[in-house]
Amino acid sequence: MVSQVVAAADEKPQQQLLLSKKAGCNSHGQDSSYFLGWQEYEKNPFDLVSNPSGIIQMGLAENQLSFDLLEDWLEKNPHALGLRQEGNSGASVFRDLALFQDYHGLPAFKNALARFMSEQRGHRVVFEPSNIVLTAGATSANEALMFCLADQGDAFLIPTPYYPGFDRDLKWRTGAEIVPVHCSSADGFRVTRAALDDAYRRAQRQRLRVKGVLITNPSNPLGTTVPRADLEMIVGFVAANKGIHLISDEIYAGTAFSDEFVSALEIVAELDNPTDVSDRVHVVYSLSKDLGLPGFRVGAIYSSNAGVVSAATKMSSFGLVSSQTQYLLAALLGDKEFTKGYVAENKRRIKERHDQLVEGLREMGIGCLGSNAGLFCWVDMGHLMRSRSFAGEMELWKKVVFEVGLNISPGSSCHCREPGWFRVCFANMSAKTLDVAMERLRSFVESSSNVTRRAAAAAAVLPARSISCPLAIKWALRLTPSTADRKAER
Amino acid sequence: MVSQVVAAADEKPQQQLLLSKKAGCNSHGQDSSYFLGWQEYEKNPFDLVSNPSGIIQMGLAENQLSFDLLEDWLEKNPHALGLRQEGNSGASVFRDLALFQDYHGLPAFKNALARFMSEQRGHRVVFEPSNIVLTAGATSANEALMFCLADQGDAFLIPTPYYPGFDRDLKWRTGAEIVPVHCSSADGFRVTRAALDDAYRRAQRQRLRVKGVLITNPSNPLGTTVPRADLEMIVGFVAANKGIHLISDEIYAGTAFSDEFVSALEIVAELDNPTDVSDRVHVVYSLSKDLGLPGFRVGAIYSSNAGVVSAATKMSSFGLVSSQTQYLLAALLGDKEFTKGYVAENKRRIKERHDQLVEGLREMGIGCLGSNAGLFCWVDMGHLMRSRSFAGEMELWKKVVFEVGLNISPGSSCHCREPGWFRVCFANMSAKTLDVAMERLRSFVESSSNVTRRAAAAAAVLPARSISCPLAIKWALRLTPSTADRKAER
Repeated sequence: MVSQVVAAADEKPQQQLLLSKKAGCNSHGQDSSYFLGWQEYEKNPFDLVSNPSGIIQMGLAENQLSFDLLEDWLEKNPHALGLRQEGNSGASVFRDLALFQDYHGLPAFKNALARFMSEQRGHRVVFEPSNIVLTAGATSANEALMFCLADQGDAFLIPTPYYPGFDRDLKWRTGAEIVPVHCSSADGFRVTRAALDDAYRRAQRQRLRVKGVLITNPSNPLGTTVPRADLEMIVGFVAANKGIHLISDEIYAGTAFSDEFVSALEIVAELDNPTDVSDRVHVVYSLSKDLGLPGFRVGAIYSSNAGVVSAATKMSSFGLVSSQTQYLLAALLGDKEFTKGYVAENKRRIKERHDQLVEGLREMGIGCLGSNAGLFCWVDMGHLMRSRSFAGEMELWKKVVFEVGLNISPGSSCHCREPGWFRVCFANMSAKTLDVAMERLRSFVESSSNVTRRAAAAAAVLPARSISCPLAIKWALRLTPSTADRKAER
Repeated sequence: MVSQVVAAADEKPQQQLLLSKKAGCNSHGQDSSYFLGWQEYEKNPFDLVSNPSGIIQMGLAENQLSFDLLEDWLEKNPHALGLRQEGNSGASVFRDLALFQDYHGLPAFKNALARFMSEQRGHRVVFEPSNIVLTAGATSANEALMFCLADQGDAFLIPTPYYPGFDRDLKWRTGAEIVPVHCSSADGFRVTRAALDDAYRRAQRQRLRVKGVLITNPSNPLGTTVPRADLEMIVGFVAANKGIHLISDEIYAGTAFSDEFVSALEIVAELDNPTDVSDRVHVVYSLSKDLGLPGFRVGAIYSSNAGVVSAATKMSSFGLVSSQTQYLLAALLGDKEFTKGYVAENKRRIKERHDQLVEGLREMGIGCLGSNAGLFCWVDMGHLMRSRSFAGEMELWKKVVFEVGLNISPGSSCHCREPGWFRVCFANMSAKTLDVAMERLRSFVESSSNVTRRAAAAAAVLPARSISCPLAIKWALRLTPSTADRKAER
């Protein structure tokens, strides 16, 4: 019998030396408050019936809104899960799939995925299946691209706020660096040319070689699509700097519920000389958000650069998509009628839930950045903080998690430079649960207001900035949503 | 529309500069003859009926021998593929699985996998599910372990011949180095203490920090289990060198068709002071060989080292196993009666096919290393080469691929230091196809003998060594297999 031996405490330092620096360091970022909030949730998860006083998970960008559509399709197409051919023969394809480990992927799946990606962009972009590299989720796609484009110590410029997982995905094993492009609420957190230039100069001062810009479009955590003009500016920046790439992470493309989603690839195609830049623009995609299938681990890199496709394909050996899953999704995405209906209905439901959150917040005087995509809102709670500082943000966050019972993500975990912003997810719960969350927050805001009023009366000498919040009010007024299409049963 | 732009040829050097050094270099090893043979096969694949003159793939270590057993089980257990609960309710678990992306894995699957791994070792090793890290195949498991244990430029000692993919899996993205432990036919390619010491000293002379030893047990490409005494010596070597680890890649554990398979973990448990070394021994496992499911991408790291488990678990984000596949395999491996019958019958079939190959080769005067596991034999064809050199090996290999129509793997691609050895796979084809392969080889050997005799008569001045081969004859005589259990229908 092998006994499971836990090393004595005094052996630990020596053990640490035994491992690599990567294993020992925490640049994987998993110890940030973003993940700590999850841990708290897991200790005491809310359930409408069995644990109504538990913590409500609003830190998880899951799309649970359209599973019934997927289940209906599975019911009608049992061959897809059953690993059988469609139609009368129904012959088993189990053997073929069990052995299928070609890292070029199942042709039927790549064709269907290419078409689905094109459909989401109004067929204004045509995706070549041979330019797709399949990966075990976007996490793996982003890391593989960094391995392809950056050497240890090279840098990518990334607009803030950005997805906390990037510190792990892009830096940890590759040794690449992230230089933040500081975006500000005064610009609605849009990426400006001045901010890009500033980040580039900062990288140069740090003697980092800049190898590219990475954007999320639609943005995580902002929930906004990148406007066409901004994309043109970013692509122009990349075009002008011959040594750099653009990674456009478009994993939320199918969640853009109003306005048109514009892909970086469209902007490139419209250039006078697209060949000059087309092999430096790479798109990351995934089915985790648009189809709500993170458990199935399906991601992709799309690139017209033959060198990137070749190297990334070889790297995909480290994270191939299960052939069982490729077969299922080839059938699902190959059903054009289904995908058309799904995409439209899924967007409608996301918008509805988004509006429920935004209106609820507005009623209690909390503003959000105006958003049109994603599974979350970017919420300004600065006026609820005792001071507009990161200490104040952390203090409020702990109250919201431990007292109010809502696990939301503080902006600081997303490297936001302005304290007071929080990412609040709305698509991973029922409308009823969202109501409970809103009600809890309303009580908290009201009690805070009472406390604040008492405190203000007791200490009128405090500077106004620390208790009032003109910025938040501005957002609250500007971003009042339409309530026309709210459903009654929520 | 985005046009798919292929860069003009003269732009390529500049493009290469744009990418990382890793993307540009070929240390992924994919351009070796091992992979080139595959490419030839893919151009003209053999089929008994539709392409009887095509190339027969004998370079692929697939296990196709027991699919009927898996298919029978799937037929009787439709809930597993259908993502439904077992029993009367048959409720769908699709939603839960779609969202399940906990990198700790599905508990039911980890429990079943731990039990299955224990079963393969006669329950002499107990595997703790919490010490298992799931990965998208053993490829990913091995790379993750290197990231955990070695910094850039650190080295692992690996006995030769070794699996050609290790150059990609262990070195490419991690920057780690492999120092070969030269094993020799004179020792039956067993790992000796002298060879380990020699490799260690060579590493020191190259100023490489040795971080461990990696063995495959059963060995790929030898098809042999590592004898208990050798394992004790290797574990002793690791125990004596406090700074190093042992990675024991046991992905062929379930193919050991005669004698008992002994895991490195058993040897550790039997030590006087196992705690001294137990956190430096790590096992890699996979379901690609023992269950024949490479397409499903299921691998695992097993370690008692909390630091390794923690870091590897975080790294597994880059290659998680699809939850759809975890659910299926939790049900399959959770069926104890099934796994017991499967493991026994699968081994019986592997032995039968192994014997068919070894006997066929013996009849034509070709010897193999005596083997008791794996899906391949390690075959000595030195006497068929015009000279016992690597040029001679490559010349023979090309003849065998292009003229004989068999894609086998030359020993040089496995870093074997003695020319003339080839890995020949036998479990990825029907018995009939193996017969065709044997018949082709027999014709080739006969015509070669005629040519050799004529050449010897015409040029009697040639040194005897280049046309005779006492070593091969020695093997051929020593390793004649029993034919008692060959079935008639092959």
